Amino acid sequence: MRSVNSLRLKDLGEREIIRKLLELIPEPKLTRSNRIDDAVLLKDFDLVVSCDAVCDITDKLPGMKWADLGWKLGVMCVSDVASKGACPLGTLISLNAPSELEMEVVEEFYEGLVEASREYGFEIWGGDLGEAPRFLASLFMLGKVKRRFISRRGAREGDLVLVTGKFGLTGAAYHLLLRGGQAPSEHVRNTIVQAAYRPRARLREGVILSEIDGVSSSIDSSDGLAESLYQLCDVNQIGIVLERVPIAQEAIEYAEYNGIEPLELALYGGEEYEIVFTVRRSSLDEVLDRLLSIGCRAEVIGTVIKERGLFLKVEDQVQPIERRGWEHYSRSRNRNKYLGANLCTW
Amino acid sequence: MRSVNSLRLKDLGEREIIRKLLELIPEPKLTRSNRIDDAVLLKDFDLVVSCDAVCDITDKLPGMKWADLGWKLGVMCVSDVASKGACPLGTLISLNAPSELEMEVVEEFYEGLVEASREYGFEIWGGDLGEAPRFLASLFMLGKVKRRFISRRGAREGDLVLVTGKFGLTGAAYHLLLRGGQAPSEHVRNTIVQAAYRPRARLREGVILSEIDGVSSSIDSSDGLAESLYQLCDVNQIGIVLERVPIAQEAIEYAEYNGIEPLELALYGGEEYEIVFTVRRSSLDEVLDRLLSIGCRAEVIGTVIKERGLFLKVEDQVQPIERRGWEHYSRSRNRNKYLGANLCTW
Repeated sequence: MRSVNSLRLKDLGEREIIRKLLELIPEPKLTRSNRIDDAVLLKDFDLVVSCDAVCDITDKLPGMKWADLGWKLGVMCVSDVASKGACPLGTLISLNAPSELEMEVVEEFYEGLVEASREYGFEIWGGDLGEAPRFLASLFMLGKVKRRFISRRGAREGDLVLVTGKFGLTGAAYHLLLRGGQAPSEHVRNTIVQAAYRPRARLREGVILSEIDGVSSSIDSSDGLAESLYQLCDVNQIGIVLERVPIAQEAIEYAEYNGIEPLELALYGGEEYEIVFTVRRSSLDEVLDRLLSIGCRAEVIGTVIKERGLFLKVEDQVQPIERRGWEHYSRSRNRNKYLGANLCTW
Repeated sequence: MRSVNSLRLKDLGEREIIRKLLELIPEPKLTRSNRIDDAVLLKDFDLVVSCDAVCDITDKLPGMKWADLGWKLGVMCVSDVASKGACPLGTLISLNAPSELEMEVVEEFYEGLVEASREYGFEIWGGDLGEAPRFLASLFMLGKVKRRFISRRGAREGDLVLVTGKFGLTGAAYHLLLRGGQAPSEHVRNTIVQAAYRPRARLREGVILSEIDGVSSSIDSSDGLAESLYQLCDVNQIGIVLERVPIAQEAIEYAEYNGIEPLELALYGGEEYEIVFTVRRSSLDEVLDRLLSIGCRAEVIGTVIKERGLFLKVEDQVQPIERRGWEHYSRSRNRNKYLGANLCTW
């Protein structure tokens, strides 16, 4: 008999739910670091596996096409795999939809997924099709480790913290599309909306990072830059001091036009698929050069310190960065900062 | 712009939906027979991958516990893998649920899945957790081919058709639980309900079959015995004449008590996880002996013939068996034969 006061998922938040579920699950022997990394390494095969899901209610932004949603699901999985230094091989898709849904919708969704499969070189092997009250697709991806698996674990004091790109566009897009924000120009509007509709994964970058021994840990920024950095701090029992946060020019323009802090968009936007990684100082030049050779201007954003926590250094003042990321089922509903009621009506 | 008369999923049925989607997807190179088998073989790794999903609305029968649903999802995937001659290694789970759901529900579901993982020897590696309007869990399973992959393709004229067990219990349970049927005794009630709540997969049987060269094709009976046989007919461009259909004693008793044809329950019940396979005549004794050695009384139910179609031979009369299986989104809604409105309200 359940008690009247049973805890609901929203009372716990994603991290606590996962912690409780992990208590029920026997420790696997075939994998490494499955409890800390988004993609799981199968030791005997040098393969990684990962899964992600999209639901029309929670993930389909206003104006987003079904093909965009299919593309994005592919990118979400590729990013998980790439940030571990692996290349995607193929996928299975579990597609669940109402029987009233138009076939064209499903076809458009698949067209987007197929586009992503061409862009990132993975195959679509098959899947499962079933009825459900809303559109919900889960993608399972298998990837091959190129040279070595890069875990989230491995950062240590003195390492440098880097990112593969600039932040803030997706946060701006969520504000624009869900909170009634205004874009200062067509160019800004197009840039930020496109970043949210058609995000890109850093596949070639991840493969290069796996080839450089001095890369000590890696995570993708899908939960938001601040939350991703906090996760690196937790796993490695370290702290990070940021000296700068690279923000996309269009996000800055959008933020200023709408009276928002650009830093807010960059730290907490989420759904951005950059790689956030740490590097031994001696490997910095090699990392920057190798990434530049494929057109990626990676930037040093901070340093790993011994003291736990995430901090921002501004003109010799060090201040803590609040932890509020993209956590499903969060009681505080911080995740809905940029999500309007139209995406969370249930 | 979509036309007003756009086709909906229910207008097409599962097979036609899949056919249309396959047209969009480039042919994979890393896999074999992915377009005909439920589990896909990755050639270079001797691995198979499979996925299945359960939704509370469509899959949780009245009286079924959440732990039963977790167990069943595990069994569904194990059965896919086992019928291909592979052993499950591990799984990822994509779990989507409303934020209002009680944590205990999710824990119970996991407990059932963990029970299945212990029973069938697979690991739970991780997964993805997200919000959705209803409970929907997709399981991705990776398995290792033991000796060889047994495809659905391979049956030829003169082969014998066998099954690993008896049919009809699940069909009876659906009738009892969803159509107001009455059980003639507690024993019958418990047996049929337990078969639906806690189905079992034929893992050891599948492994043995993969070790015998004369086993020419294999499929699990999850779509119903008749539909599974029809699928073997389609893939192999053959026909099958059944000489007998093994029906569980309790299903016969249930059917007679409720004025239903027992054969109806056995052919169209679905959600039963026996292996349906074909064997060269010269291998029959070896197959029967090897399976008996692990306590499985497999039975010959018919013969592969050249003429297309599925037939039943009764006292020298051969009559065709109607095709109506467990097809999602079927326009004719035959799949709902034993599914009441309470499971399909949308």
